[in-house]
Amino acid sequence: MTARFPQDVYARRLAAAADGARAAGLAGLVITPGYDLRYLIGSRAQTFERLTALVIPASGDPTMIVPKLELAALRESAVGDLGLTMWDWVDGESPYRLVAEALGGAPAAIAVTDSMPALHLLPMADVLGVVPVLATGVLAALRMVKDPSEIAALRTAGAAIDRVHAMVPQFLKPGRTEAQVAADITEAIVAEGHSEAAFVIVGSGPHGADPHHECSDRVLQAGDVVVVDIGGPVEPGYNSDCTRTYSLGEPTAEVAERYAVLQRAQAAAVAAVRPGATAEQIDAAARDVLAEVGLAQYFVHRTGHGIGLSVHEEPYIVAGNDIPLAEGMAFSVEPGIYLSGKWGARIEDIVIVTADGAESVNNRPHDLTVVAI
Amino acid sequence: MTARFPQDVYARRLAAAADGARAAGLAGLVITPGYDLRYLIGSRAQTFERLTALVIPASGDPTMIVPKLELAALRESAVGDLGLTMWDWVDGESPYRLVAEALGGAPAAIAVTDSMPALHLLPMADVLGVVPVLATGVLAALRMVKDPSEIAALRTAGAAIDRVHAMVPQFLKPGRTEAQVAADITEAIVAEGHSEAAFVIVGSGPHGADPHHECSDRVLQAGDVVVVDIGGPVEPGYNSDCTRTYSLGEPTAEVAERYAVLQRAQAAAVAAVRPGATAEQIDAAARDVLAEVGLAQYFVHRTGHGIGLSVHEEPYIVAGNDIPLAEGMAFSVEPGIYLSGKWGARIEDIVIVTADGAESVNNRPHDLTVVAI
Repeated sequence: MTARFPQDVYARRLAAAADGARAAGLAGLVITPGYDLRYLIGSRAQTFERLTALVIPASGDPTMIVPKLELAALRESAVGDLGLTMWDWVDGESPYRLVAEALGGAPAAIAVTDSMPALHLLPMADVLGVVPVLATGVLAALRMVKDPSEIAALRTAGAAIDRVHAMVPQFLKPGRTEAQVAADITEAIVAEGHSEAAFVIVGSGPHGADPHHECSDRVLQAGDVVVVDIGGPVEPGYNSDCTRTYSLGEPTAEVAERYAVLQRAQAAAVAAVRPGATAEQIDAAARDVLAEVGLAQYFVHRTGHGIGLSVHEEPYIVAGNDIPLAEGMAFSVEPGIYLSGKWGARIEDIVIVTADGAESVNNRPHDLTVVAI
Repeated sequence: MTARFPQDVYARRLAAAADGARAAGLAGLVITPGYDLRYLIGSRAQTFERLTALVIPASGDPTMIVPKLELAALRESAVGDLGLTMWDWVDGESPYRLVAEALGGAPAAIAVTDSMPALHLLPMADVLGVVPVLATGVLAALRMVKDPSEIAALRTAGAAIDRVHAMVPQFLKPGRTEAQVAADITEAIVAEGHSEAAFVIVGSGPHGADPHHECSDRVLQAGDVVVVDIGGPVEPGYNSDCTRTYSLGEPTAEVAERYAVLQRAQAAAVAAVRPGATAEQIDAAARDVLAEVGLAQYFVHRTGHGIGLSVHEEPYIVAGNDIPLAEGMAFSVEPGIYLSGKWGARIEDIVIVTADGAESVNNRPHDLTVVAI
């Protein structure tokens, strides 16, 4: 069963998007299927070569442009409840002219959703006579700051994935393959309330040193360090994403020492979260702890990413991103260390910025979990 | 198991794409993940916010630009065998500057794959100082005309879905729901060699009058006309797509008469296929037969779509598309009639243009299949 929020949530978001467009000096926004459309009207429509687009003029009412054949794809969305104007079109007509009309004529400046494909963007730009800009400035500003119903959904997802991590030690046995462990985890992710397992990374031994390894037929061995990074959506579609690292038997002194530094790095980054701190300061907080003992070179990715309807969204917690954090933002804090060919470790929680700090929606212990073998 | 063609297939395609770019007066092509990338190098990479792009200059060697973290996503592709130059980048760097460099400096004109998201297209256009055009003109021209290995793959897929249609009558029983029938069909699609069931439409009674109905909990009844439109990919990824219409028990005279016209319309369209005929002439051939008896108003969609790695691709068989057909093109011929609230029917085969006509990869009878009840 799919679910969506009450219609007033979407009405508020549509009004805020129009306000944002107006404030940015835009004539309007054009939103094709993707997470922005889902955020704005609860639609999960997937369509490619025929244009489906929500047109939000800076002033006036939004219009939904949809291929007549795909009207049904919007049934699950809030367009009916919201009483949105719908314009349908059939094969052979130009939907881009309808976009122009919905914007009230030739606009001086418009913005488009970041997922709009070139297939629609370029001919639309031709018909409108204007090269769009990204709507990210308007929509990311809205989507980044979660409202209470979204925060509740993220907490539910976080608790669900915590329950899965609590089960992981029983799946990890020397002699089993990463793929067998991943299959058990996938089942547990769904059993604990997710619509699906969006990703299941089981990186054992040297595979743990590849941050984007998924899983393989490698057989777990005593002494392996195992990175388990898992998550998925919980209705109405907000995602979990949590990493813990496990040791099959007691870790070596090298692993234990370096893991302890990583644990301090992750805690330092979470402790740095508060309204007004910048995204790059959170990244630096983790990196600095690792740098103090010469481990920064092994931390080869950003510290985190925003999360919500999408697993990866703004704000990105990365050097160069000076966006100030605000109450209600939700993102991962997930430093890792990767010793090529040997082992890796990562600790990841999703945190929500509060009035004076951070709330973690993940609450399993952060220590290296030693699995008895 | 995923599969791909031998590397010389991809080498030929890359060379042809560069030739096409040069002939079109372009400095090069920029291809992000999607069917074009899969066609050109066999990559099924899926990545969104970090740029992965194959840059094909009109002259000189192609370069693959890839986030360091996602290098593994290209392992299954032919990039290794082909010895392509790989440039990786890490968070914080600008991959668009690498695109410019791979094109040998500031280009005057470039084209992009139709699936490139605005998220990459617009900042890349800024860095390059040029608004791209669609690479469809170059790549669709290549992808539309299937080579012998692709034709063999489409035949295999067609035979597989024919075997499923042969089983459909046994799934269709009054008292079962569309969803139950669809579940059986889904299982059969995979059992007969597809990697997955990409779509399973079971439109019974009035649901058959909605061309994009998928399936529901409606219970089949004696006398129902049922549209069954099914397909999916067969490794290395070429799709089947075939529709037959079934009658639960003997049809009414109205259904039988109108179906017979539809059958003539479908046959007329297939008979019109030959090199040099235009896509819109094929569409008209089907529509004219229906128009002669006043049924054209019930045929509310285009007559067909190209098929290959993607279920819907060029050439589109639709009014206004005057592209001349060429030997090796593959597309659906699928006229339908839709009597709102009552019933619908559609007949669909995938055909390949031959030297003097058309070869159908689907070979089940075209008659309305009467299921004994």
